[in-house]
Parts: sequence; structure tokens; C-alpha cells
Amino acid sequence: MQASAVVRCKGEDSPNQLSAQGTLIVAKASKTKQTSSRPKRQNLVYAQSGGVTSVINASACGVVETARQHKDRIGKVLAGRNGILGVLKEELIDTSKESARDIAKLRQTPSGAFGSCRYKLKSVEENRREYERLIEVFAAHNVGYFLYNGGGDSQDTAHKVSQLGKSLGYPITCIGIPKTVDNDLPVTDTCPGFGSVAKYVAVATREAALDVASMCETSTKVFVLEVMGRHAGWIAAAGGLAGEKAGDPPHIILLPEVPFDKKRFLAKVKETVDNVGYCVVVVSEGAAYPDGTFVAEAGGKDAFGHAQLGGVAPTIANMVKDALGYKYHWAVADYLQRAARHIASNTDVEQAYAVGRAAVQFALAGKNAVMPTIVRKSDKPYRWTIGEVPLSRVANVERKMPKSYIRKDGFGITAQARRYLEPLIGGEAYPTYRGGLPDYVALKNVLLPKKLDAFEP
Amino acid sequence: MQASAVVRCKGEDSPNQLSAQGTLIVAKASKTKQTSSRPKRQNLVYAQSGGVTSVINASACGVVETARQHKDRIGKVLAGRNGILGVLKEELIDTSKESARDIAKLRQTPSGAFGSCRYKLKSVEENRREYERLIEVFAAHNVGYFLYNGGGDSQDTAHKVSQLGKSLGYPITCIGIPKTVDNDLPVTDTCPGFGSVAKYVAVATREAALDVASMCETSTKVFVLEVMGRHAGWIAAAGGLAGEKAGDPPHIILLPEVPFDKKRFLAKVKETVDNVGYCVVVVSEGAAYPDGTFVAEAGGKDAFGHAQLGGVAPTIANMVKDALGYKYHWAVADYLQRAARHIASNTDVEQAYAVGRAAVQFALAGKNAVMPTIVRKSDKPYRWTIGEVPLSRVANVERKMPKSYIRKDGFGITAQARRYLEPLIGGEAYPTYRGGLPDYVALKNVLLPKKLDAFEP
Repeated sequence: MQASAVVRCKGEDSPNQLSAQGTLIVAKASKTKQTSSRPKRQNLVYAQSGGVTSVINASACGVVETARQHKDRIGKVLAGRNGILGVLKEELIDTSKESARDIAKLRQTPSGAFGSCRYKLKSVEENRREYERLIEVFAAHNVGYFLYNGGGDSQDTAHKVSQLGKSLGYPITCIGIPKTVDNDLPVTDTCPGFGSVAKYVAVATREAALDVASMCETSTKVFVLEVMGRHAGWIAAAGGLAGEKAGDPPHIILLPEVPFDKKRFLAKVKETVDNVGYCVVVVSEGAAYPDGTFVAEAGGKDAFGHAQLGGVAPTIANMVKDALGYKYHWAVADYLQRAARHIASNTDVEQAYAVGRAAVQFALAGKNAVMPTIVRKSDKPYRWTIGEVPLSRVANVERKMPKSYIRKDGFGITAQARRYLEPLIGGEAYPTYRGGLPDYVALKNVLLPKKLDAFEP
Repeated sequence: MQASAVVRCKGEDSPNQLSAQGTLIVAKASKTKQTSSRPKRQNLVYAQSGGVTSVINASACGVVETARQHKDRIGKVLAGRNGILGVLKEELIDTSKESARDIAKLRQTPSGAFGSCRYKLKSVEENRREYERLIEVFAAHNVGYFLYNGGGDSQDTAHKVSQLGKSLGYPITCIGIPKTVDNDLPVTDTCPGFGSVAKYVAVATREAALDVASMCETSTKVFVLEVMGRHAGWIAAAGGLAGEKAGDPPHIILLPEVPFDKKRFLAKVKETVDNVGYCVVVVSEGAAYPDGTFVAEAGGKDAFGHAQLGGVAPTIANMVKDALGYKYHWAVADYLQRAARHIASNTDVEQAYAVGRAAVQFALAGKNAVMPTIVRKSDKPYRWTIGEVPLSRVANVERKMPKSYIRKDGFGITAQARRYLEPLIGGEAYPTYRGGLPDYVALKNVLLPKKLDAFEP
């Protein structure tokens, strides 16, 4: 172990009792790797990671509220400012400065209340220094619990931190909290964040389709909605929930899992307009040609040599117009879909809160390097409970959409997919409103005084 | 008057008493222009016109429910299939076939339940035949009331029909019902449909801004949301409600009323990112250069010679990237915004219903060629009542956004604008849900048997 892993405290007011002990442990560890007994009461670091969702703050709410119920064991909940970057920079938000009322409001507030980041720690071999820095920060602030709220990469990081903590002799309890609109974490029935995007997309598809249907005789015949999902079609598939019986919109879903065949697609559009009078298309941003080229990329450059501005929706829409001459409209939901807390799935909100709460409970129960999961007990009525999975089983495993969820013609979802997806958008969880707008909370986000030297990740 | 204006009934079961009388009246009118006494009980024709909204069906609900309370005076409510086109083609939906429950659900269902169309009747001089055809259809089906639900053009049409009915000796009571997301009808405080789009845009802006704020340190710095409003900035201005104090997003609103100045815009983006860390832009699709060219049009052609696919949002976003290098995202709400009944303004829903109800009441009170209006009594609390205005004062008058609503720098709204706009997004009017999705109604839409020869508009 490098000397730099020893905590260097600055300022006279530190080390306090707790951080001094942290220092001691780390210092010892450099020689003996001894895992000494931990103080009974330690602080907890929580960090949000990657793309935010409309319910990641509900998980934060679950963490903070549950931790506050265990003041004998958990001191302060400290949140990394802008995620793991804040932990590395020792920019720790002191959530004890927030009122119970504001913390409760996290449950109804989208996005990352403490900030998030797209910052993936390299492997321990490539950048051991960053992992050591995390341990230094933990030690300096008597942190015994690290809860990392994110997708696959974050679970991998949490796993590594837990291992490294052990090897550095600073035992740190690491619990992953699942979050991703991509729904691609393994083992868990679903990932908090996905259900609400799914609901948004299903609702938006149903609403826009009604609009198009009522005007198609003299106006728009083809409507294209672009949704997220670069690698998997979970979100686009959820658009399929908008229709209830054969022939209902959306008439075509373009999934990344099904190589895009322009000729077949255009034929399907024509057939639909001929039969139904209009055609609604939900397209995943990840829709791609057989060679892997994204459909959105294939449009070439504009007159100024810029890459084409539009996403896949305008590309598809223009394709339809060129080949079939139909009047079209298109929408790109982009961040609106993952931030749409106003139409969040209540199931999703409850699950997001539950995994946050469970993470704290797991930590207190002495579990380590695990992630709470959603375990489906039944489809209809949807019953679920909280399970757990070792982080080692989550890290670097991507869950794909099963082939059995995709209709034979590749343009829709099966009854099996519907059975899986429908419960996830169940229930509404409206935020409170003030002046006609959702009353989302902005926390004070007071930083804890720093104790260590600066560190630039 | 041309002979063709005389109603030609086909089939043995017609003419019934009422349509026979209609025939008689029209036949007489060709000689004497006599306005004979009307039958006590006549049918009512209701038609939806132009772009649909999330609350136009609430107006329809107001019409049908109120008419059903006056069965002594109003026989059936007949709805034009796809708007005025259906009236011309004698495709009249018999709403008496719909249950009270389904009619009540119209209040929570977006889009046009009977279909709408973009079809503007030419002037009486240019196409008198179409107006005469309307009167023929009315006469054939004993229609005494014509309620036309639309924007400025529709009010103009309703006005002309009322005049022509008089001159043809078939007195028809014509009442306009205001509807347009563009908010550009004069006299009325607002236009049903606008408040809900305004609420959608304000909510979406607030939510997306939170998303961007929480990630801006390592990810997207500039977010652009494109909203409707080709001629006026009412909808984009509503995005301004998302912010409550100076510095809150949206940081820039690009209105059609303010000629686009690229240099000033880019400077403002840079200044905002420097100061706040990120920048949220709401842009109206009608944003234009000083010479009137739409910003969206100015991007030129792509490599294949196609007009650029994107709307104004990608154009603006690319401009930012080219000049300043910031990572950007953009969204185009398109139909999602005007169909978003799930986040409708309760004020808007109530007003939409109220103008539908008032239209029937006006008709029964013997008023003619008028439109119910919303009259603002006070801003805070918002109090309003129903007024009326002659259609002659509404037709061909476009209401512009006052200059006093636009901030001096042209990039935002004033306190005065906020005072006007805020009440319009007040209150939530959630639809009921089934299986996680809004339970929107699909009516049976049974057509009345035709009595006349075919007519191709």
C-alpha cells in the first residue's frame, strides 16, 4: 500500500475523535491489513451516479429517512456533491442540515438532488489512487457505510471499493442501490427509474396517437416518437402498452434488438395508413441497421458539413415522406421522459424508496457488497418484495430484453412483454403543486468542512 | 339562390316531419327570404375544428351534457365527423347513441372525439355552394343550432353561416366555441386549450432543468426545448413560469416576437453557463431572423439535398455547439404538448367545459352569432366568469402578445406576463387511470342515416 493512502488531515479542528480513529485504522492497515473493530456509530456516504431519473431522489429519501431512524448507529448521512466526484474531492453535503420536510419532498422531486455525474472509476490496477482517495475521505469523516445509487458501472465501483477497503484495512460497508432507466441490471425484476419512463412513454404515445387519429383525414398521417434506449429497447417497448388490442397504436415499434429494414418498415407504414388511416411509430434512439450503424447516424452531413442535426425520429419521418409522401410529425422526448416526475409510476416510486431504505437496513444488518433487488412474486396483481444480490453478480452483467418479448414481425411487443411491463407503470404518485407547478424541493446542500488536501480526480 | 339549395331527400323514410319542414323553409326562402317560425324542438350540430387540444372534448362534454338537460328544445346533438367536412358530407354522428358515462369521460379525454379537420371554408363569394350545402344538411336533419368549436377561422365560418342562413330563409342559430392552443382569439381572457399546453411546457421545463442542473458538471451544459407557436410566443412564454426568481431556468426564451440575433443569443448562453453552470433554452417554433426567415428553415439542405430534418431546437443546439463547444441535448415536444391531458390545467378544463355549456345556453336564450368568452375578474385569486362577444368582433382579429409581457432583453417574460399566465395553469385535473394508463374514452360514433345526395367538398 502506498503511503499516500494514509489520511492527511488539515486544520486544527480535525481530527475529531471519529476521523482520528479512521486515520489510525488506515495507518495501521498499511502494515497489518488488520480489520479492527469499527466504531458503533459511523457516518454514511450516499452518492448518485450516472443519468438521473424521476425517482432516484425517492431512493435518497429512503436512505436518509431510514438512517435518521437509527441515530445510534448512523451519524450523519453525507451525500457526494455531484456523485462520486464529490466524494473524491471531499465535497460532502451534510444532509443533517435539511429539514425532515425537505427530505420527505425528495420523494416527489425528479433529478439528482445532490448532483450526479458520469464518471467511471477506472480499474483498481489503472487508478488505484482514486480508490485509496475514497478510503481516505471515508476515514477522515468516520464513514462506515458507502451507498452507491446507480447502474451497472456504479455497482461495479461499489464492489471494488468494498474489496479495497478490506485490503486497506478500513472496512467499509458498501451497498449498491439500483437505478437506471435502461432497465439493464440483472437479477432485479426491474430497475427503479425505468417504470416511470415506461409510464411516460406509454401515456405520451396514447395521447399523441389520439391527436393524430382525430386529424388524419386532412392532416398528419404518420407520427414518430423518439425515446431513449441506446442499447436495449425496454423503453420503446413500453410504448406498446399504449395499445390494448390489435390495430391500436403504436402500430410500429422500432427496437435496437431488431435490425432496421427500411423496405419492410415502409411497407408496414403504408399498410397501416391504408388500413387504419394513420400510423404511429415509436422508435428507440438505438435503432440500427444490420451492420450496427445507428439509423440516426445514417443521414449524413448537412450542407455545411455538420453531422445531421436530427435524431432518429426526424430521420425516420423524412424517410416516410420521401418514399410515401405522407404528411408527418415527430417528437423527441429526450430528458423530458426521464425527468417526468409529474407522471411517475407509483410502483416505481415505491420501489425506489424501498431499495433506498433496504440499503440502509442491509448495512445495519452487517451485509456488505450487496444490492437490494426487486423480487416479483406475481404479475397480476403485481406483488413484489425486496431481495438481495451480491455485487459481484451484478457488476458487468447487462440484462437484455428477451426475444420472447418481441412480436414475430419485429414491430411490436408480445403478450409476455405486456405481462412483464404493465405492473411497472401501475399507479400514479402525483407530486404536490404550488402555483400550478410541481413543488419540487431544492435542498440547501451545505458542504461539510474539508479535512484533507485537495485532490483532482 | 340556386336551385341546388333546395333539399333533396332520398329514401322513403324521409322526409320526416322536421326535415320536410326544413325543405319547405328552404324552398320558400328561395323566393321570399321569409324567416318562418322555427319548430320548438330542433337538433343541434356540433363540430370540432383545426388542431385539437387536450380539452376540446371537455367543451364537447359541456355541449352534450347541457343539451341533454333541455330535451324539450334540443332533440339530438349531432357531431360532424372530422369536423365541418362531416357536416358537408352529411356524415353526422348521432351522440344520442353514447352513454352518459362515456359523454362524461369526454371531459378527461384529449384530442377530438368526433374527429377534426383543417378545412377552411372559402368566402361566400368564392364558394357559396358549400355554405348552401351546410344549410341543406341542417334543413334535412331539422338542425336549428350550429355550434362550431375552433379558432379564428372557425369563428369566421360560424359568423358567415349565420348570415347566410338568414338570407336563405333558414334561420340557424350559430354559436362559436373558442378553442386554440395559440391563445390568439381576441376579447376572451384566454382560449381553452392554451392553459393546458402552458402547464405542460412549464412543467416540462422545470423538470428537464432539474435534470440538467444535476448533471451539468460532467455532462450536458445546454438544453433546448422546442415548443409550438408559429406566429406568437404565448406557449414559449409559458415556459417562463418554470422559474420563480431571477437566475432560475429557463434562462433564455426565444419568442417569435423578438427577431433572433445569433450573436446576442450565443453571448447570453455563454454568460449563463459561466454564471450558473448550465443553460436552459425554450424556443418557439416560430423564432425567426429579422428578415422573417424561420430559424428552423435557415439550416439549409443535407447532403442529399433534403431540407434539413430537424426543427428549431436542433438548429439552435448545433449553433451553440459550433460556437461554444458545449455538450447539448434538445427535445421537441410537438403533439405531446397539446395532447397532454394527463397534466391538463384544471382551470383550462373548467373553462373549456363552461364555454361548451354556455354555447348551448346562449343558443337556447335566442342569442345568435356570438361566442362565449372568459372574462377575468381578478388575477389572484383568479376569478373568471363567462361573457359573450359577437362573432363579427372575433372573426379575423388576431390577438398578439403584448410587448409589456416581454422582458427588456427579449429573453424572458415580465412580472406582468406572469400575472396573466399563472392562473391559467392553475389546478390539476387528472383523468382516471386503468392499468397504469389514462382511461380515455373512444366513442361509438354511429353515423345518422343520410338523406341527401352525396357532396364532395
